[in-house]
Amino acid sequence: MKVMRTYLDCFPCFLRQVVIALSQVPVDESLRVDILKETLEDIRMTDTSKTPAHTTTHIHRRIRRLLGCDPFKEIKQRYNRKALTLYPRLKSLVEESPDPLWTASRLAIAGNVIDFGIYTEVDIEAEVERSLEKEIVWDDYADFRAAVGRTEEVLYLVDNAGEIVFDRILIETLLDRGKRVTAVVKGGPVINDSTAEDAVEAGLHKICGVRDNGSDAIGTILEWCSEEFRGLFHGADLVVSKGQGNFETLMNVEKDIFFLFQAKCNVVSGFLGVENGAMLLVEGGRLKGIGSSPSSAG
Amino acid sequence: MKVMRTYLDCFPCFLRQVVIALSQVPVDESLRVDILKETLEDIRMTDTSKTPAHTTTHIHRRIRRLLGCDPFKEIKQRYNRKALTLYPRLKSLVEESPDPLWTASRLAIAGNVIDFGIYTEVDIEAEVERSLEKEIVWDDYADFRAAVGRTEEVLYLVDNAGEIVFDRILIETLLDRGKRVTAVVKGGPVINDSTAEDAVEAGLHKICGVRDNGSDAIGTILEWCSEEFRGLFHGADLVVSKGQGNFETLMNVEKDIFFLFQAKCNVVSGFLGVENGAMLLVEGGRLKGIGSSPSSAG
Repeated sequence: MKVMRTYLDCFPCFLRQVVIALSQVPVDESLRVDILKETLEDIRMTDTSKTPAHTTTHIHRRIRRLLGCDPFKEIKQRYNRKALTLYPRLKSLVEESPDPLWTASRLAIAGNVIDFGIYTEVDIEAEVERSLEKEIVWDDYADFRAAVGRTEEVLYLVDNAGEIVFDRILIETLLDRGKRVTAVVKGGPVINDSTAEDAVEAGLHKICGVRDNGSDAIGTILEWCSEEFRGLFHGADLVVSKGQGNFETLMNVEKDIFFLFQAKCNVVSGFLGVENGAMLLVEGGRLKGIGSSPSSAG
Repeated sequence: MKVMRTYLDCFPCFLRQVVIALSQVPVDESLRVDILKETLEDIRMTDTSKTPAHTTTHIHRRIRRLLGCDPFKEIKQRYNRKALTLYPRLKSLVEESPDPLWTASRLAIAGNVIDFGIYTEVDIEAEVERSLEKEIVWDDYADFRAAVGRTEEVLYLVDNAGEIVFDRILIETLLDRGKRVTAVVKGGPVINDSTAEDAVEAGLHKICGVRDNGSDAIGTILEWCSEEFRGLFHGADLVVSKGQGNFETLMNVEKDIFFLFQAKCNVVSGFLGVENGAMLLVEGGRLKGIGSSPSSAG
């Protein structure tokens, strides 16, 4: 299997992420420029055999350290609240659906649009409509439903704040089917990824077990996670993995795993041979043999 | 008057330019990554009180030095040839127009789409249609026509290869009106900007005087140009300036100058309060008092 690594096209995006992060906080532009210049050192140190998530993790650590705060704290709360106002309607959509698991999976993929590593603003409502109407380009839903049917336990790796409310709905759908679910959040803040605090805001702690992975990395870089989490992960019967970062970092782990996400950049889209913005429900095992180099990285 | 300077949003674009330049030549990706990492030093040295053109000039110098060649040499020739095949049709459009100067000016702005500092590919034919049909957002054509009527001599700063064929048509229209025209090209290769070689390929040397500005900078950074060119520039009655780079670097020079270009990035578009991709024919004097900070630059 081809491994996701860092391509030439990832580099401008590293700086775009820096600009997005620095634009979240009301500080002088001169301070922003100074911090951006310091992150060039993380970019220079990029090991292109690793995933882009490795570099962006270092970048976001440096930004938080130099700002002395988590720049995404406010926007995470805002999107949690916004998503919670949508919760009743989303819940009805699932309850009234002839196939609640199908609808809840689609909504979970729709929620993945809330990603401030990539976007500067998102229209959640429009995204919900799109997810229910548009074809999912890579759709292993039949296998997902079968795998859920076979398993008793699901390890659910959530991705972003706001999106976590959409995850709650899929998790509730799994619970309704008698599954035990453990939701996994980040061990510390990074971009707008969900932490324990967001799990509480989304009400996840009231419906299922919530663990953190002991890491502040983008995605799930297993060697940087806690031993406790690694045990949980390797012992899990079935893993639901949300978001592009988790896809990048877990795509070649040997595991019963389904990736629910949107392809948000040319590199990942090119790698998978899909359009940018494509919604995907991918069984990990199906990834063997795929993975072409993005064109400009040739 | 507000001066165009370097904003936070320019930084990711610096790296995007590096990727575009490095993608022009068939070298190993590992070499591309090594060269990209070396350009981080030019980015780190950015003086944000200067225009982005200052930094990108240093970046492109370094890329040429490390590659040992001009990465845009081939694509420049290709677009010169492509534009020359369009020449007869464009010429007819102008000759059949009720206002040849109007049509030739629009076509010159259309030709400005051929810019490989910003784009990776362009559709010249579609752009020609657009230029003749779409409203020019900022249109000082009436003043331009009047200024051309008053003057005997025009100093014409051309921008990109390929585009230079479109410039030839506007220059011929000025010559038809009895004006003396001197076309100015770059003193050395930078991105796909026209040099003396491109002037010859476009046949410009057969119809008017051609001078180079003694510099390999993006745009026209007067202090980096030859003394000879500076004399020519300061003595000119009327200057026609093509392209965004020349706009950035000359917008606050006291001069009878008209800027014909397309706004191709969020920073310049935001600065002018126009849409990205807007076609513009701007009298230099009209720029006094404008210039808002691009939003994300806070």
